Amino acid sequence: MGSNMVEHLLELGHEVVAFDLSAEAVKAIAAKGATAASSLQHLVGELAAPRVVWMMVPAGRPVDAVIDGLTPFLRAGDIVIDGGNSRYTDSVARAEKLRKQGIRMLDIGTSGGLDGARHGACMMAGGDREAYEHVEPVLRDLCVENGYGYMGASGSGHFVKMVHNGIEYGMMQAIGEGFELLRASGYDLDNQNVARVWSNGSVIRGWLMDLAGKAFAQGNDLGWLGGKVADSGEGRWTVEAAIELGVAVPIISGSLFRRFQSQNEEHFSDKVVAALRHEFGGHAYEKPGEGEGKA
Amino acid sequence: MGSNMVEHLLELGHEVVAFDLSAEAVKAIAAKGATAASSLQHLVGELAAPRVVWMMVPAGRPVDAVIDGLTPFLRAGDIVIDGGNSRYTDSVARAEKLRKQGIRMLDIGTSGGLDGARHGACMMAGGDREAYEHVEPVLRDLCVENGYGYMGASGSGHFVKMVHNGIEYGMMQAIGEGFELLRASGYDLDNQNVARVWSNGSVIRGWLMDLAGKAFAQGNDLGWLGGKVADSGEGRWTVEAAIELGVAVPIISGSLFRRFQSQNEEHFSDKVVAALRHEFGGHAYEKPGEGEGKA
Amino acid sequence: MGSNMVEHLLELGHEVVAFDLSAEAVKAIAAKGATAASSLQHLVGELAAPRVVWMMVPAGRPVDAVIDGLTPFLRAGDIVIDGGNSRYTDSVARAEKLRKQGIRMLDIGTSGGLDGARHGACMMAGGDREAYEHVEPVLRDLCVENGYGYMGASGSGHFVKMVHNGIEYGMMQAIGEGFELLRASGYDLDNQNVARVWSNGSVIRGWLMDLAGKAFAQGNDLGWLGGKVADSGEGRWTVEAAIELGVAVPIISGSLFRRFQSQNEEHFSDKVVAALRHEFGGHAYEKPGEGEGKA
Amino acid sequence: MGSNMVEHLLELGHEVVAFDLSAEAVKAIAAKGATAASSLQHLVGELAAPRVVWMMVPAGRPVDAVIDGLTPFLRAGDIVIDGGNSRYTDSVARAEKLRKQGIRMLDIGTSGGLDGARHGACMMAGGDREAYEHVEPVLRDLCVENGYGYMGASGSGHFVKMVHNGIEYGMMQAIGEGFELLRASGYDLDNQNVARVWSNGSVIRGWLMDLAGKAFAQGNDLGWLGGKVADSGEGRWTVEAAIELGVAVPIISGSLFRRFQSQNEEHFSDKVVAALRHEFGGHAYEKPGEGEGKA
Repeated sequence: MGSNMVEHLLELGHEVVAFDLSAEAVKAIAAKGATAASSLQHLVGELAAPRVVWMMVPAGRPVDAVIDGLTPFLRAGDIVIDGGNSRYTDSVARAEKLRKQGIRMLDIGTSGGLDGARHGACMMAGGDREAYEHVEPVLRDLCVENGYGYMGASGSGHFVKMVHNGIEYGMMQAIGEGFELLRASGYDLDNQNVARVWSNGSVIRGWLMDLAGKAFAQGNDLGWLGGKVADSGEGRWTVEAAIELGVAVPIISGSLFRRFQSQNEEHFSDKVVAALRHEFGGHAYEKPGEGEGKA
Repeated sequence: MGSNMVEHLLELGHEVVAFDLSAEAVKAIAAKGATAASSLQHLVGELAAPRVVWMMVPAGRPVDAVIDGLTPFLRAGDIVIDGGNSRYTDSVARAEKLRKQGIRMLDIGTSGGLDGARHGACMMAGGDREAYEHVEPVLRDLCVENGYGYMGASGSGHFVKMVHNGIEYGMMQAIGEGFELLRASGYDLDNQNVARVWSNGSVIRGWLMDLAGKAFAQGNDLGWLGGKVADSGEGRWTVEAAIELGVAVPIISGSLFRRFQSQNEEHFSDKVVAALRHEFGGHAYEKPGEGEGKA
Repeated sequence: MGSNMVEHLLELGHEVVAFDLSAEAVKAIAAKGATAASSLQHLVGELAAPRVVWMMVPAGRPVDAVIDGLTPFLRAGDIVIDGGNSRYTDSVARAEKLRKQGIRMLDIGTSGGLDGARHGACMMAGGDREAYEHVEPVLRDLCVENGYGYMGASGSGHFVKMVHNGIEYGMMQAIGEGFELLRASGYDLDNQNVARVWSNGSVIRGWLMDLAGKAFAQGNDLGWLGGKVADSGEGRWTVEAAIELGVAVPIISGSLFRRFQSQNEEHFSDKVVAALRHEFGGHAYEKPGEGEGKA
Repeated sequence: MGSNMVEHLLELGHEVVAFDLSAEAVKAIAAKGATAASSLQHLVGELAAPRVVWMMVPAGRPVDAVIDGLTPFLRAGDIVIDGGNSRYTDSVARAEKLRKQGIRMLDIGTSGGLDGARHGACMMAGGDREAYEHVEPVLRDLCVENGYGYMGASGSGHFVKMVHNGIEYGMMQAIGEGFELLRASGYDLDNQNVARVWSNGSVIRGWLMDLAGKAFAQGNDLGWLGGKVADSGEGRWTVEAAIELGVAVPIISGSLFRRFQSQNEEHFSDKVVAALRHEFGGHAYEKPGEGEGKA
């Protein structure tokens, strides 16, 4: 993501100083016009005040490590941007900590995938309002038209991005259920054809449906991939936030739980239910490994 | 079920005339004291008016077949009991049809498993009130104390039984989820021990928890059975009735759907979601059959 | 819908003969260039063979009534199109019935709302393949580019449309949960701003998000409308079809059930749970009508 | 709960020293035979080594406050029991802290309601095994036969209790859905009668069904209470633990979310869905406060 964004900025005439733990990555992006930095100190040294440092690193400890590595070299008024998928509560805490040193932080959630990072993304920003206004021209260049905005106080950028991902989980699961129904219908449907039609003029048209069309272009049965669906942190955080806020999210949590289920072949709950049925009703049950049988 | 009930009745001094499509089954129950009948006509001929004919046959066409076989020999005032798991709407229609010939029908939902059929069941009766009162002494003998009752008009016995099964689906799934959580906890818990404690004095004590204890006595991991869970008609009918009545049943339907999921190893919805994630994010995905991998 | 479609066709130079039970409606559309018919017989008489009759009437009996009214005047080779939201099983039965008279039927599910009907819709067609090819030029004109297609045998058009609506239920509910979370967040977010950003470049961009932006333009709290959400037949049918096909649809059914819940202010299940808690734990409970209290 | 347990112990001949922040409560229990303590120091001073101090205080800070108040007076080998509904992760941390001072802690989850506390409860114990064996005679007296047990390491008692409550949420919701279906059926059923039958011999018999019978004895419509259902921490913690452990719990979370929904009269998600339907389809919508209308 980060390198795609840098490439995009360079293309539009921005000057970028780039640092990465991988010297290879730095070299590659320098070849495209970025100024290579050999360390965080070096990176900060190359920037003019007020410095704008944009981090694209994995959520959790890596973000803290970069911030800790940067702060000795930053000055009051500088701006640190966390453009990754951090938990919003972490962003609130980090902004508070940096604020004590006069450093301004923005939490910017990014959507749009790899392609968006390269050709026009969607960005939700939270944190210091003046810092946001200072970097707005960069957001304007990185994003598609109308595809960025200031959400509110620290953490709100990552909060809105987290909820975005929760919605995404639900939308994808709804689409998944729909195509599973089509497949079970007995109508021998051409999924790519269906996705094409649904992508044009229907109520459910949108980028996800366009992508479904692309996926089915590679085979009606999606035989090129298995059915395990990973979950990153944001689906889990959305449900945890909902619980804390007392908001019911059966659709989003149902989508998260289906991913959990997809990750394992055996579910102990099923065995418990099968055993209970056997105990009370003498119902036949499947023997272990009796894959084809029906309980 | 039927033969267990006959045995129970014989034990308590009732006279029973028994017929089954299997001559073996008739012979076996005759050996225990029932009068054997060689046909439905024979069976009816052995009974004194008003005759009480109790069917224990699978739901659907078999019930219609037996009723069609019986009606030529029945007279006004006779009583036909459907003690099986018929769909309540079918029972309403059959009662209406029999009523035109003066024959009274009762739909009696039965719960309690095989053991209950033999030693004391639970019965929910719907249909003609006077017919119910006529057969009440038999219900009293077949059931545990307080374990039977008159529900209401035709179909209500099977409706209440259907809802009973819907609740049963939900309760079992809740128990299943609980033990799956225990198993994932890292505490190395003894499930039989947990079920024993929960069976005595807890809020969730009941027959299902007793049965869980029996199941876990055969192994903490339930390694003796697979995880496919069959579903009979009643869970489906409960959700269908809920949809028709406009009643939200996320718990009961969620339990039914988990059974559906347990019955198949691959779920197309998962593949669709995995494919969409790959399309927009370049997320790694599991290759087909890459069982151990993580997407 | 029907009049919008006719207007669209007239605009593109098609000749249309129009009939409606409301003479007003016929008059209005005649004023825009359609040939007015005073009866179904009149309508059929005005068409050249093979006649193409396109019905836009409410699902259920109205469709049968129109077909019954048409068939005396139709000839072998004529084409009847049901462009409404009929249940796909009904469409299968009707096509079969018409086929015996040599009349070809197409079931065409339509999406895109009122605006789509007027300016470019999305259509999913099932039924006789040759009949489809005969009317394809009309579909091409009625729909947005790439927004129509032949799905398969009779019923498949309405089946695919039904599943489309099921997906729509799930997507809308996911969006609803997301905005409910935003509102509960304490961040004082501007929902129109969020919807605008999400509509441009994000993974969840699409028509529904565009519409969310339009809705929030009328007020951040949607104070102009209440929270009852009606459900038409298609959500219910989708879940019923899933049950019949043994496909798990927790997201779609969860969305349907939430609509059911929105339609009533009191839910007996809640009272039952509150009563059980009170019975076992002596938990305080809310008195009836104690709106503000907390149980 | 605590005073009921003390009464139970006194009745069986145990000596109990009691302290409570309310002098009234201490006086009341002293009148029944307990030794009154005027402070935590006084309480500890009245006990012989190894001292067993049993806390029954609300989860969270109160537990820490009592432990902090006790530890200056405790000695190595003493036993502290947390018999409340603490979060299991807190219990793990507290046990670890006390262990450093040589103090042994047991986390004991208690079920069975107020009545169980007085006449025979159900207890799940985690923590130091020798400490458990030391207090086992007290557990035997406090609980119904077979209604207690040692679960495992620190935190396991509260973990198992937490999951017990999760199951309880699911079971109650399933029962609630069932009775809502009965009520919508049009059969004019007598819920108390149904609960009585289901309590005797059915698969779903158990304490919750007994309690349902008691609740319906007060009125078929439960008109004596409103429908807001509070949620204590344990349902939320169960779902949070499930998310952390990657276990799917759609039934338990669905039950928790229904409680959330019951706590508010308006749900913003519903308004969002209603608004979207209006935007794309021109569907009629309910005006705010238009309580009786249908959208």
